[in-house]
Amino acid sequence: MTEKKTAQNQEPATVSHKFDTALERVKHQLSHLLKNTPPMVRVYTRHLALSQGKMLRSRGLLACAMDRENRISENAVRVSVGIELLHLATLVHDDVIDNASVRRGIPTVQKKFGKRSAVICGDYLLCMAMKCFSQVTERETYIGLSFPDYISRLCGGELLQQENGWNADISPGTCLRIARGKTAALFEGAFRAGAILSDQTESQSAKYARLGRYTGMIFQLTDDCLDYVSDESKIKKPVRSDYEQGVFTLPLVYALKHYPQVKQQINKKPPAKEEIQELVKQCQGVEYTRGICELYYRKARNLLAELDITEEKRRYILQLVNQSYYGILGKEG
Amino acid sequence: MTEKKTAQNQEPATVSHKFDTALERVKHQLSHLLKNTPPMVRVYTRHLALSQGKMLRSRGLLACAMDRENRISENAVRVSVGIELLHLATLVHDDVIDNASVRRGIPTVQKKFGKRSAVICGDYLLCMAMKCFSQVTERETYIGLSFPDYISRLCGGELLQQENGWNADISPGTCLRIARGKTAALFEGAFRAGAILSDQTESQSAKYARLGRYTGMIFQLTDDCLDYVSDESKIKKPVRSDYEQGVFTLPLVYALKHYPQVKQQINKKPPAKEEIQELVKQCQGVEYTRGICELYYRKARNLLAELDITEEKRRYILQLVNQSYYGILGKEG
Repeated sequence: MTEKKTAQNQEPATVSHKFDTALERVKHQLSHLLKNTPPMVRVYTRHLALSQGKMLRSRGLLACAMDRENRISENAVRVSVGIELLHLATLVHDDVIDNASVRRGIPTVQKKFGKRSAVICGDYLLCMAMKCFSQVTERETYIGLSFPDYISRLCGGELLQQENGWNADISPGTCLRIARGKTAALFEGAFRAGAILSDQTESQSAKYARLGRYTGMIFQLTDDCLDYVSDESKIKKPVRSDYEQGVFTLPLVYALKHYPQVKQQINKKPPAKEEIQELVKQCQGVEYTRGICELYYRKARNLLAELDITEEKRRYILQLVNQSYYGILGKEG
Repeated sequence: MTEKKTAQNQEPATVSHKFDTALERVKHQLSHLLKNTPPMVRVYTRHLALSQGKMLRSRGLLACAMDRENRISENAVRVSVGIELLHLATLVHDDVIDNASVRRGIPTVQKKFGKRSAVICGDYLLCMAMKCFSQVTERETYIGLSFPDYISRLCGGELLQQENGWNADISPGTCLRIARGKTAALFEGAFRAGAILSDQTESQSAKYARLGRYTGMIFQLTDDCLDYVSDESKIKKPVRSDYEQGVFTLPLVYALKHYPQVKQQINKKPPAKEEIQELVKQCQGVEYTRGICELYYRKARNLLAELDITEEKRRYILQLVNQSYYGILGKEG
């Protein structure tokens, strides 16, 4: 059923679009696909769709897929739909993982329907994503996209985070490795897929991959900072929730280096989140993290300046890098 | 890393093997792949590998992939490895789903490491499976295997079961639909994949698919019966656990039809599992289910007799059908 209906919404892979049309097509196909899922998945995703993500990953893919005429192929649209489905799947499974009760301001799937359903719902979305990827017309291209590898890396990052739950001795390097897996891998895969789908050479595609990785790191580190500086009302998700979940991100890890006695305290009886926030503030943990984030931001801008692409394409990609860097701090650079 | 090492274990897709060699290759590649996973996945899977499954799905695929000379291609070996990984992934996620504390006689992953890790570990295995599937050399063949569709159907079955948790009014038809999704879909996909990989026509492959579906139904219905007749010591997993999880299978659903007052009781305060077992015994719920199971068994044998295949191939497939039908009741037919 789903398949036939989708087919009606798809044009041949040779058709190409301008960026805005391509993005509209992604949104349209995504909501169409989600409407044709089993009832429980439908209820879940309506629920997530309501909250309207920024679609950074699929916008990254589309921007990187622009050719010399700034056109984007239908193949890239299909893979972008897959990327969004994949991201939705990880959100649903993350919710199981993190015991989070609120995401994007709306009660999470598992709180509403229980862990059992959330696991299956995530699996279902993951399959839908795989199906989208397999719709790429050339086999070699499909294999080259290596999505299973990127998803494995994503899982690897999550596992490393899990292993280091409540580990007050976690090193800044491990924090960065976790971010690289759990967040940057998917950005990298998306940017690289865009390059491959617009027929870039292997060495060019590797540059896009790197750009994607930087963007992902910027996004994650900004998010880690936001968790320590925001109001709950503003960012629409619980603040200091990382700490409460036993996930120690860079701002806190930096602060703990200066307060070994707090480390010991954490191992016995974790202090309240307000205390932890105060500690991070005193030690300028957010400023430190922001500094690392800026390094990635500079690298990303330099790499972007190097790419031999149209100015329009550069503008679209820069917008995403900036959006990741400024988060919802407001200032769009 | 994992990829390179795997490549060493693989021969070109054109190489073919006898059944036992092919099965050995599947086991070997599987354990090799699992050894090269991140530490936490490795610990999990060592744990599952210890318990040694019957590998019914991959053996089904291999048997169906036998050509006129009873040879099996390396492509079929790769896909079989994927099928086993996929099955492992579903076991890990099932454990999250069912809150099960024991499977195959060994404490489950989540009991040992927590729900969070089990979800990611299952996702990781799922990606590894997808990667194996994508190693099939011809794109058209890969697409034709339709694994994402089969996994979606599997999820659909699990969701339907979930929706009907503690539903004392569930119909026998819904029970069968659940079994068809959660269990038979993967058997169907495996048998059909075997047929496609041995270059059967589409109409022939559809017959293998049907045979796989029957085998899966036989396997599940036998399992449902075992849950009501076995000793915990014998089948190495908790008995009557379906009922305790709110999963009402055919033996109980049939019994409840005769005792509407028990239905009402279930809605208020569920009776102890011993009471439920007694009820199933009185109403001959197991005998009724066994009757349905026998219908599938006859259909499977008739269909198998119809297939134009070598006697050796027929023997291998029949062995699997019989093993599913007799379960660990002992009698190998």
